[in-house]
Amino acid sequence: MNCIFCKIIAGEIPSVKIYEDELVFAFMDIAPINKGHVLVIPKEHHNSSSTVPEETGGRMFHVGSRIGVALKRGLDFEGFNLHLADGTCAGQVVNHAHLHVVPRGVEDGFHWNWRQLEYAEGESAETAERIKSKLKL
Amino acid sequence: MNCIFCKIIAGEIPSVKIYEDELVFAFMDIAPINKGHVLVIPKEHHNSSSTVPEETGGRMFHVGSRIGVALKRGLDFEGFNLHLADGTCAGQVVNHAHLHVVPRGVEDGFHWNWRQLEYAEGESAETAERIKSKLKL
Repeated sequence: MNCIFCKIIAGEIPSVKIYEDELVFAFMDIAPINKGHVLVIPKEHHNSSSTVPEETGGRMFHVGSRIGVALKRGLDFEGFNLHLADGTCAGQVVNHAHLHVVPRGVEDGFHWNWRQLEYAEGESAETAERIKSKLKL
Repeated sequence: MNCIFCKIIAGEIPSVKIYEDELVFAFMDIAPINKGHVLVIPKEHHNSSSTVPEETGGRMFHVGSRIGVALKRGLDFEGFNLHLADGTCAGQVVNHAHLHVVPRGVEDGFHWNWRQLEYAEGESAETAERIKSKLKL
């Protein structure tokens, strides 16, 4: 395979490592939203988060949130975001599932876009039925 | 406790449920970024993702990403984001850890802000040392 993140895990492409165990690898994002931005990835290659085994996803979530706490304690931030893009239209650039850990501060000058659409009467319940009809765990 | 999400889990406040098991509860966000936006929360109350047990975090990650697939299949989206805000400055509004699952499409008219800062020579490695010195799993 020609995956840049697999090559980082293998040490064929250099990275600044934060953490590694049998399931996950964490390293510094080279173009951070805020300085301290870390990526947590499964060692096993998965294009999508949806095929990552639950145990590995749990390790990613746990390591990501604990790195979030370390960002607060070590770099004087007050919060963090965990963010994952699945699919090009969602912002995924590297096709190896990766969880962003972004340190956040009151005065970091960054904010996420957000918007709030409104459902018509009954539309949310109808939408939920369509989701549930396709949900396979 | 006076937590709105604990009350949703208990059925004291109505919600449109997508999924429930012994560890997690998933329901429709009432003010979605795109229609189909779901929240996945631990049944046990945690203000922060960082205290959620790894097993529960794994279930949140797994259920969230599988709901993401259901959003694609059931609602004709092409991707999804998982997003979690930890701390007010990060955008956390309800103090019960929650994972957003946001369906995304090529033509959904939404994009996340993103920015890319640059590290000076050696700054990333120095920052990493400060993070690692505070990392407790």
